[in-house]
Amino acid sequence: MIIDCHGHYTTAPKALEAWRHRQVDGEKPLASELRISDDELRESIESNQLRLMRDRGADLTIFSPRASFMAHHIGDFAMSSTWAAVCNELIHRLQQLYPRHFIGAAMLPQSPGVDPRSCVAELDRCISDYGFVALNLNPDPSGGHWKEPPLDDRWWWPIYERMVELDVPAMIHVSTSCNPCFHTTGAHYLNADTTAFMQCLTSTLFRDFPTLRFVIPHGGGAVPYHWGRFRGLAQELKLPPLSEHLMKNIFFDTCVYHQPGIDLLTHVIPVDNILFASEMIGAVRGVDPQTGFHYDDTRRYIEASALSDDDKRKIFEGNARRVYPRLNGLL
Amino acid sequence: MIIDCHGHYTTAPKALEAWRHRQVDGEKPLASELRISDDELRESIESNQLRLMRDRGADLTIFSPRASFMAHHIGDFAMSSTWAAVCNELIHRLQQLYPRHFIGAAMLPQSPGVDPRSCVAELDRCISDYGFVALNLNPDPSGGHWKEPPLDDRWWWPIYERMVELDVPAMIHVSTSCNPCFHTTGAHYLNADTTAFMQCLTSTLFRDFPTLRFVIPHGGGAVPYHWGRFRGLAQELKLPPLSEHLMKNIFFDTCVYHQPGIDLLTHVIPVDNILFASEMIGAVRGVDPQTGFHYDDTRRYIEASALSDDDKRKIFEGNARRVYPRLNGLL
Repeated sequence: MIIDCHGHYTTAPKALEAWRHRQVDGEKPLASELRISDDELRESIESNQLRLMRDRGADLTIFSPRASFMAHHIGDFAMSSTWAAVCNELIHRLQQLYPRHFIGAAMLPQSPGVDPRSCVAELDRCISDYGFVALNLNPDPSGGHWKEPPLDDRWWWPIYERMVELDVPAMIHVSTSCNPCFHTTGAHYLNADTTAFMQCLTSTLFRDFPTLRFVIPHGGGAVPYHWGRFRGLAQELKLPPLSEHLMKNIFFDTCVYHQPGIDLLTHVIPVDNILFASEMIGAVRGVDPQTGFHYDDTRRYIEASALSDDDKRKIFEGNARRVYPRLNGLL
Repeated sequence: MIIDCHGHYTTAPKALEAWRHRQVDGEKPLASELRISDDELRESIESNQLRLMRDRGADLTIFSPRASFMAHHIGDFAMSSTWAAVCNELIHRLQQLYPRHFIGAAMLPQSPGVDPRSCVAELDRCISDYGFVALNLNPDPSGGHWKEPPLDDRWWWPIYERMVELDVPAMIHVSTSCNPCFHTTGAHYLNADTTAFMQCLTSTLFRDFPTLRFVIPHGGGAVPYHWGRFRGLAQELKLPPLSEHLMKNIFFDTCVYHQPGIDLLTHVIPVDNILFASEMIGAVRGVDPQTGFHYDDTRRYIEASALSDDDKRKIFEGNARRVYPRLNGLL
């Protein structure tokens, strides 16, 4: 079985975007004013993600609302709250339509400067009512201005406490950058991954929450490439080795879009900390002229890596069952 | 010959830090109030950088003031101006004491929101009077708040115009982060490298300045590890291949502190775009228990890589002579 732990609903019918535009324009549309039929949902997914999953042999995707559209920096908590509810409901409907192929991960109604406690109700609803198995946590709801405290700050604890109770992991995933310095998918995403890892490294977060689990997407940003730097910095700070200090709690996905990157990731990072993912259909949709295959067809890179078949199975399935116990329960 | 293109004067006598503290405290000390003897300079360098260069077989370092101490976010232009002059003069004195081992790269008197034109006089002084061969350009003088325009903005052009006239490259190097989200050497540095590359990718900067040259330090941040992503994003944006679009103007150093990272860098990035560097003595000073050698002894990784001897010579010497023509002239 092949589980892709990182997919977003990037192909929603246009009606969703139109509804969001009305909301951003201050019209305060009701959630019920968004009308998307089951047929439209099916069409949007069968011609896109599900088609590619079938082509590439992936069975199941942990699926969440489009990351770049979360845009937590726009409006206030009320706006984010309605928007998250609308987006999560669509994921829920897709999960009902395709229960063997899509399992939800929740978008939170974060808003800059607003106590994360405000997000717990939506998280509860998604996990308990919808049967989602994870959430996306945005460490920078300001959208590239990085005004929230670091992830180890008690500011975030209400979310962590609920995550531990619900036994769900969070993917640490930012949204659109509204800072002109940062290209969203070419800089902000990768920077956030590196930043989140280092925030954890310099903290005692996982001593405080020994069962808290973070998935750091996009192959861990710059971290595996600079693994020597991070091991050395931990040593400089007199911390335990990273294997003890962080690697019971942090996992990297395989959204690295070329063979040498995946080879480095799988060589450097313990296999138990790697989760298969493609972020398909996402930032990089083209065909790599060097290979003739899609950049984001990451299964090929794992298959072609030097890993043993047992290790590949861990990355494709076993690790996800461990990191997402609610998913394992459903399967 | 082995040229290390990335060293900072991190081991200056304590008097420098004391002078800076007085400045930051608002005492406005004069540059002339800093007294460091030639013997103190010799001691600070012979027992540190020069000793390690001899141990490791590096001949010459392109040497600049301590990056994390630039702290352009503190005070105003007048403060940065005096501080940069003080720091650059020390590098100049070291260059006079050890002309075969240290060649200067200038720190600029940047200050948040201040027109970069204000930096040209110090740049001129360092290149023309001191014989420096390069400069460090901080894309984020705010220290982790990223309030300056991206590097392709005309805001920066006065510096680029002078760089082109002087025929000197800039290393794109941030300073201390004063944003608690970003650890300076574990996140901010790497993020800035990735950010700078992406700012160049989405611009026509090198069409406007075909001979402008940027060195992106720390192995290019996350870029080589995600080379497929960047190739794919350029393709998505209908840009020319990166080899034409950026790689006549952008160079990565080898400050990547483990063998798999250097193996990826040298496998993925054209050899003509890689410059030997260690950033010694810098952020990661320890000995890697996995190898028994210092993390930042990067020469070992290059030597152990799969590159041919000719390619290694390019990385150790040939490329630096091309990217830093004033250095080549001096040699």
